[in-house]
Amino acid sequence: MCLSPALLHLYDTKDAVVVIIDVFRATSTIAAALHNGAKSVIPVATVPECIELGSKTPNSITAGERDGKVAEGLQYGNSPSEYPTEFIKDKTLVLTTTNGTRLLHMVKDAAVIITGSFLNLQAVSEFLMGQNKNVLLGCAAWKDRFNMEDTLFAGAVVNAVKDSFSINCDSARAAYHLYQRTEGDDFISFLMDSSHYIRLSAYGLEKDMEYCSTPNLHPVVPILKGKELLIHS
Amino acid sequence: MCLSPALLHLYDTKDAVVVIIDVFRATSTIAAALHNGAKSVIPVATVPECIELGSKTPNSITAGERDGKVAEGLQYGNSPSEYPTEFIKDKTLVLTTTNGTRLLHMVKDAAVIITGSFLNLQAVSEFLMGQNKNVLLGCAAWKDRFNMEDTLFAGAVVNAVKDSFSINCDSARAAYHLYQRTEGDDFISFLMDSSHYIRLSAYGLEKDMEYCSTPNLHPVVPILKGKELLIHS
Repeated sequence: MCLSPALLHLYDTKDAVVVIIDVFRATSTIAAALHNGAKSVIPVATVPECIELGSKTPNSITAGERDGKVAEGLQYGNSPSEYPTEFIKDKTLVLTTTNGTRLLHMVKDAAVIITGSFLNLQAVSEFLMGQNKNVLLGCAAWKDRFNMEDTLFAGAVVNAVKDSFSINCDSARAAYHLYQRTEGDDFISFLMDSSHYIRLSAYGLEKDMEYCSTPNLHPVVPILKGKELLIHS
Repeated sequence: MCLSPALLHLYDTKDAVVVIIDVFRATSTIAAALHNGAKSVIPVATVPECIELGSKTPNSITAGERDGKVAEGLQYGNSPSEYPTEFIKDKTLVLTTTNGTRLLHMVKDAAVIITGSFLNLQAVSEFLMGQNKNVLLGCAAWKDRFNMEDTLFAGAVVNAVKDSFSINCDSARAAYHLYQRTEGDDFISFLMDSSHYIRLSAYGLEKDMEYCSTPNLHPVVPILKGKELLIHS
């Protein structure tokens, strides 16, 4: 398990399943959009790339935030609540986020790349147990800094899959201990004392974070095929 | 709080108090040697530097391990039990370790650098509360990987000083949660499920690790003055 993109070089991702984790909020939004019927989600690194790809892609929408607001030149933000079925069905979501997208593009040689969040916790865990491969849980973190929400989610996955895997690093063990500190999967109460919660609360995003901390509302496994995230079936 | 030397660049150490943490076993050995009467401890990065400095320093001994054994050309190892008073009193210990020494030399602009371990937990905590400065708890980790023992110690420090400081990063919060998972300061039981414990057990070092996990056996604060670690008085 990798706590920050700055530590990714320490891990062997070759032929592994890598789970990209960016709970607040990229990988939550990806699960919601796909579950609600988006044709695909294309993660891109920058706002200009997002605009360019959006203009080339039929029936697409461009989305992304910087500093808690829709980025200039884009149409929508980075909240799962912006993508209900009646809006997103059959559209391609071109999404730019900083931390999650960066990590996703850093992983080069994995067998499989999927994205995980509390919204698809069980689906991701079951997928991992069915793969018979090494797994790397990769936290997007925040500007390379350890963050609580991604690590807590990793701990919830460790808890769910622990009987099917051997744990071979202390970060996975520590994540599991964090998970054990939550009560009855009340993740949001635990996460209220975290840097990202405090930061995003200043933008009035408490409801968004509560939504992102609710297990299994969008039980799909987004899997990277080429440059697109699609539902694994 | 910094979980790995590979993340140190994310933190501002200017004018801060930095606590170097390498529980298994460099900073434990440093606390033991100084408390048992060593004149000073000089941390160096490499075996050749250790040999050279040892040859130049009167009444010194050279020490360091590689792969759990005394390194070739040096006299002693990296176990606190090797440095009782009758042996170490008034001597200078020239010590080479990989992870702890490297981190110590990476910190350039701190106001104060001290070393911490369970053996001097309370002394370090009281020192920090008396300084009125920002504090960075810096884990030596293992080859840049997060490790359990250094983070757990950081959590024990957070617990001890939390009423005197505001916590402004998720790693310190997570370390505190880890500490909360221990029972009655029985640190060694908690640490038995950790990578370093498993690795060092293969060298028969269980007693060493148990010793290093015992709080407050060597209640001194090793502080860096020039190139030497001395007892803060």
